[in-house]
Amino acid sequence: MERYDIAIIGTGPAGVSAALTAKNRNKSILLLGSRQMSEKVAKAHEIRNYPGLPLVKGADLAAAFREQLDGMDIPITESRIGAVYAMGDYFALQAGEEMLEAKTVILATGVVMAKTLPGEEELLGRGVSYCATCDAPLYRGRTAAVIGYSPREETEAAFLAGVCSRVMYFPMYADRTDLPETVEVIREKPEGILKAENGLLVKTAAGEYAADGVFVLREAVAPGQLVPGLETDGAHVKVNRKMETNLPGVFACGDLTGTPYQYVKAAGEGNVAAISAAAYIDKKTKE
Amino acid sequence: MERYDIAIIGTGPAGVSAALTAKNRNKSILLLGSRQMSEKVAKAHEIRNYPGLPLVKGADLAAAFREQLDGMDIPITESRIGAVYAMGDYFALQAGEEMLEAKTVILATGVVMAKTLPGEEELLGRGVSYCATCDAPLYRGRTAAVIGYSPREETEAAFLAGVCSRVMYFPMYADRTDLPETVEVIREKPEGILKAENGLLVKTAAGEYAADGVFVLREAVAPGQLVPGLETDGAHVKVNRKMETNLPGVFACGDLTGTPYQYVKAAGEGNVAAISAAAYIDKKTKE
Repeated sequence: MERYDIAIIGTGPAGVSAALTAKNRNKSILLLGSRQMSEKVAKAHEIRNYPGLPLVKGADLAAAFREQLDGMDIPITESRIGAVYAMGDYFALQAGEEMLEAKTVILATGVVMAKTLPGEEELLGRGVSYCATCDAPLYRGRTAAVIGYSPREETEAAFLAGVCSRVMYFPMYADRTDLPETVEVIREKPEGILKAENGLLVKTAAGEYAADGVFVLREAVAPGQLVPGLETDGAHVKVNRKMETNLPGVFACGDLTGTPYQYVKAAGEGNVAAISAAAYIDKKTKE
Repeated sequence: MERYDIAIIGTGPAGVSAALTAKNRNKSILLLGSRQMSEKVAKAHEIRNYPGLPLVKGADLAAAFREQLDGMDIPITESRIGAVYAMGDYFALQAGEEMLEAKTVILATGVVMAKTLPGEEELLGRGVSYCATCDAPLYRGRTAAVIGYSPREETEAAFLAGVCSRVMYFPMYADRTDLPETVEVIREKPEGILKAENGLLVKTAAGEYAADGVFVLREAVAPGQLVPGLETDGAHVKVNRKMETNLPGVFACGDLTGTPYQYVKAAGEGNVAAISAAAYIDKKTKE
């Protein structure tokens, strides 16, 4: 298996910037995210303070990022990372049933803007999961509920429908869903997740829905969940000015490190994180 | 006299980014620098890792910055700031014989890459000056030597020629000079500045040149010289993640705050500095 120099998780301005700089430093990189780049960027109407690109529309900025990556032969791997484990001299990244390897990790996953649901954190790992591809095998032939925060999560629900006997889908957005018929779409807003005698319950204003597993799928996952042992401050990862986290070899950048949530701040931090990661690798190589 | 909300010193990526964001936050700004923007940017051949602008030439990035400022009605004031003084609830900026006022100051002057000359620091204020417009009156009818690190300094030398009886100009670059005939251009590299019985001496490999005043003119001035009391670390200003310096109301960003010396890192920090300055003002206003 290829062990990359730097795995970058996230394709917003921070992740893209980190990838460009890491590539420039001749490091092998694994850029994990979406070809649609960041939802926050793509949906921005007009960005007025991105230096060099006056009044740029979010969609145009996302397109510019994508073209720039393409031009530098940096592919985007569209895997969802469920967890990052420190293995001593490298990191293992769980991408569904696959494990990927990298010498360093740059977290650029953005910040979880939505509050967690009541019961969500307590029941995480005890029926609640953030990763359909990771945990689907646990619910083979059983009932799953999916709480999806963006239309992108529909792919995960469709995948679960091929594994579970029954899949309920709770869209947390107004857009029309585009799902296989085997997925039941329930247009009721979940208010919490409860422990039942035999599995879990998704509670809405209108009722309760029993499920063996509840998948809560958002664009960004709480960083402490993603990387065990990572020092956080609420929804943010603690970093210093070099974008180093408390874990050697793990760097963070962008909204994930705290306010201001601004595109060019994120891009600047991605640059610094990549340079710090490259320096970390070079130092290790010399040792 | 107008007291600006934010004075921004420097028109590289950090200063430009700070200006764009400050303007977006409806702050009145005084942007001090050059219409040629930053020499470091303008002379860059090709920048490969500025997110959103693939393979951009330095001159094109500088032009893009200038157009963006113009489009947002942000003028550039081409004054050289000799010193910044904390006056209690505002700052006074010495621009030649004029004093400018601002509630907060963002330093984005870049980093002094050239080493100081032997004798330069010891004799600063005792014959050595960094600011022709500030100190020219001291050398009226006397002899001045100007050590100019870029063709931009020629304007200062020409100005001195109208005040002093004799001006010698030592260009620290290979370009042809474009100076009035009254300025003597000496193509010998200064090796140091010495104290003589009656004034100073500029020492070169070929000889020694007596002068009453020696002006050492570089694009960037050592930050501790610019702002008395500012906490520095070598050529860098100490800042935290909010770009706050040790002096309340003074912020710093860009190369000035340390490595990596990268365009997008500087732009990101300018954004953060502007937001911190705006928050500082808003808080003061409420007090």
